[in-house]
Amino acid sequence: MIRVTVWNEFFHEKNNAKVAEIYPDGIHTAIAAGIAQPGLEIRTATQDMPEHGLTEEVLNNTDVLIWWGHKTHRLVEDAIVERVHASVLQGMGLIVLHSGHFSKIFKKLMGTTCDLRWREADEKERIWIVNPAHPIAEGLGHYIELEREEMYGEFFDIPAPDELIMTSWFEGGEVFRSGCTFTRGQGKIFYFRPGHEMYPTYYNKDVLKVISNGVKWAAPVQTEKPVFGKSQPLETIQAKAE
Amino acid sequence: MIRVTVWNEFFHEKNNAKVAEIYPDGIHTAIAAGIAQPGLEIRTATQDMPEHGLTEEVLNNTDVLIWWGHKTHRLVEDAIVERVHASVLQGMGLIVLHSGHFSKIFKKLMGTTCDLRWREADEKERIWIVNPAHPIAEGLGHYIELEREEMYGEFFDIPAPDELIMTSWFEGGEVFRSGCTFTRGQGKIFYFRPGHEMYPTYYNKDVLKVISNGVKWAAPVQTEKPVFGKSQPLETIQAKAE
Amino acid sequence: MIRVTVWNEFFHEKNNAKVAEIYPDGIHTAIAAGIAQPGLEIRTATQDMPEHGLTEEVLNNTDVLIWWGHKTHRLVEDAIVERVHASVLQGMGLIVLHSGHFSKIFKKLMGTTCDLRWREADEKERIWIVNPAHPIAEGLGHYIELEREEMYGEFFDIPAPDELIMTSWFEGGEVFRSGCTFTRGQGKIFYFRPGHEMYPTYYNKDVLKVISNGVKWAAPVQTEKPVFGKSQPLETIQAKAE
Amino acid sequence: MIRVTVWNEFFHEKNNAKVAEIYPDGIHTAIAAGIAQPGLEIRTATQDMPEHGLTEEVLNNTDVLIWWGHKTHRLVEDAIVERVHASVLQGMGLIVLHSGHFSKIFKKLMGTTCDLRWREADEKERIWIVNPAHPIAEGLGHYIELEREEMYGEFFDIPAPDELIMTSWFEGGEVFRSGCTFTRGQGKIFYFRPGHEMYPTYYNKDVLKVISNGVKWAAPVQTEKPVFGKSQPLETIQAKAE
Repeated sequence: MIRVTVWNEFFHEKNNAKVAEIYPDGIHTAIAAGIAQPGLEIRTATQDMPEHGLTEEVLNNTDVLIWWGHKTHRLVEDAIVERVHASVLQGMGLIVLHSGHFSKIFKKLMGTTCDLRWREADEKERIWIVNPAHPIAEGLGHYIELEREEMYGEFFDIPAPDELIMTSWFEGGEVFRSGCTFTRGQGKIFYFRPGHEMYPTYYNKDVLKVISNGVKWAAPVQTEKPVFGKSQPLETIQAKAE
Repeated sequence: MIRVTVWNEFFHEKNNAKVAEIYPDGIHTAIAAGIAQPGLEIRTATQDMPEHGLTEEVLNNTDVLIWWGHKTHRLVEDAIVERVHASVLQGMGLIVLHSGHFSKIFKKLMGTTCDLRWREADEKERIWIVNPAHPIAEGLGHYIELEREEMYGEFFDIPAPDELIMTSWFEGGEVFRSGCTFTRGQGKIFYFRPGHEMYPTYYNKDVLKVISNGVKWAAPVQTEKPVFGKSQPLETIQAKAE
Repeated sequence: MIRVTVWNEFFHEKNNAKVAEIYPDGIHTAIAAGIAQPGLEIRTATQDMPEHGLTEEVLNNTDVLIWWGHKTHRLVEDAIVERVHASVLQGMGLIVLHSGHFSKIFKKLMGTTCDLRWREADEKERIWIVNPAHPIAEGLGHYIELEREEMYGEFFDIPAPDELIMTSWFEGGEVFRSGCTFTRGQGKIFYFRPGHEMYPTYYNKDVLKVISNGVKWAAPVQTEKPVFGKSQPLETIQAKAE
Repeated sequence: MIRVTVWNEFFHEKNNAKVAEIYPDGIHTAIAAGIAQPGLEIRTATQDMPEHGLTEEVLNNTDVLIWWGHKTHRLVEDAIVERVHASVLQGMGLIVLHSGHFSKIFKKLMGTTCDLRWREADEKERIWIVNPAHPIAEGLGHYIELEREEMYGEFFDIPAPDELIMTSWFEGGEVFRSGCTFTRGQGKIFYFRPGHEMYPTYYNKDVLKVISNGVKWAAPVQTEKPVFGKSQPLETIQAKAE
């Protein structure tokens, strides 16, 4: 059983009629419902909850955290960011969606600005699979097509990903590394581009398939916790003449 | 169910009394028995069988192929190597063990000589985990210790691995990239260093754990078979003035 | 001084009037002239020469080999491919251009089919820089635009490149990893996509800039030749009880 | 001309007689003298200077910054760390030496704890080259041997490096990824392990060779500064029916 927490800033849905119409119960609820399946135990959390819904207890019981944020990144408390960061390094998987590229937690894990080009212009996106051996590509066709999405374009200021799985084509002329994996400590991170709040992207079955594949890929494995600091030698060290 | 074929050249066991004593039924049988567990359906094949035991039918029913060879690499028929190569590109996982580094199939997949330094001197090897987020490290401690092994030392002439999971320390002063992953086409490849025929390495529970972790990691996922060649445009291409 | 050999199959220019008009002295001559600059000593070689112009003596005096081939890949002699392969592993840089993706030497170095989607439709290509720290991107803008090119689309069946520097957008809806680096042994390899024979791509100053940047990046450095085989221990190995 | 700034916390040399004896003018001065050569313009800066010697003006005139720190990492002002971070993303090269692994700037760029195992036991280190194609390995033998060094052991909590160039063997039984490259934004970063203050490591000619190779590799190239934010389309976007 993989325990998933879907986190959402939950701002646009309460402040924009069109978004509210698309996601009446919030993006988090749509994602949670969309990826529901045997083997996943899913809960949600939102920024307006105490400790943003990410208490020690919640994180200790989360195998994979899915993150959607956009408008209120700066209002996420640094102490909670530190807590999530520690959890990732200790093995909690993290799926960062769309505008989550600019979240404090993603920037902290990447070490870069995570900036990019963008445009809202009702344009077509086609997400090509460039690594057909990867479990995150399971069950997809050669590409995912989204009739209307926000454009994100290169240069995307992230470290070179460990694995590049998907690359987007945009109608307006740009490309983007849309499906990227990273490891940090014992934790696995998957960044997945689509999901502008003004479009019903999180009802698209291919998009949901990628997210649930990502959850399975990012779930922690029972590896040994690293030991750091002063260490006794495992072999005899020869005394040396001065 | 993952269908595993353990392939062995099966030469030393029939030509060297000491090896025969350690592996009376062959290295393949020891590995097959050692990784046996629910979820794996395991068969063996050896070089002396017709088509080296790797008929079309066997390969079509193999999810992961484990390869051990050493003395008779050059006697493996090129046609069979081509067949295995095609299977890997189409998604069959491949675990290459120890002296399999010099097999035709590994060299063909890597594009390099796959050469290295070596020494048989009854020396200690300590294999350190350098990627504790990786499923192939599941259930291990911080390192695996083998009291006696053959030394393999750098430079190991392979392409930079996609993921480096383990690095060996040798008593005689060398290091080696001992656990390396690669993808080729839809196939995943894991090279794992230990397993000299003169030592009972394939009875070591950590070594067996790595091999079975590798099998699970390398098992094919149901990704879409790539389509190549002439392609119709997906968007309208503007006529251009000469 | 970097000694460059520009190799061309030199077939289309002699068999197609339109290509002959664009490249009257051959693609090799256009590239050689286009990248000429202080610090580069450039010669050319073509497939119709004895030993395809790639004698031991030529290769021993080549720091970086540029390769363009398409129609007559299969007529390149295997012995010459082996010779070029050995030179790359020993440090000679290799720049593979456009349809060179299907050359024997590139396939041998990659270990995969190197297949891809393609289309000749007079369409626009825009090559985005996705690694602005890389010397191969020196002096370029954010992208290179080519009004008419052949389309190459994903999945491109190569190993994950060591570094991805450029990604193409095509008017017809595809993307492609257009600027990729690899190392094999002591040699550095750069694959660069553009250059269909029916278009004057090798007169484009950005394309030429990338090729000359590639030459400088791929030029061999004086690293120590690896030593392989049986090795004496560097440290005392303890005698062990049976 | 590459403009290099060698930065040192300069604490141990003023507070420990043995260190003062080895590096009477500070580690920074020894490194600056040791890598001096035509083509490098070298200055030094220390933590006790105003703004730690890293004013806007200094950074604007630095192509590559070399960083040695250990005891007083926490006293480096956050504002200066931000400034160095911005410079790296804009292309300044960064060479992080030895205990600089725990500096604020390295941790910020990596996004991880950068923790490791360590031991001071007068033990032998042998640094093996595992990438003989890399310019940072230029002019070295197959390994560098240091008779006495501090041990650093795995797991080293960094992201998987873009390139692994060197791996250390330690007498006491550990291994370590000792020469690692990363890119962040337009900047290139090289981490190099050796250099405990209690040993004369920065007088070793191979160690100095690696540092000067690193400087040349990390020097900025004139790539185009990325543009971020709202972007006009480069192609016509079709109006879509509601």
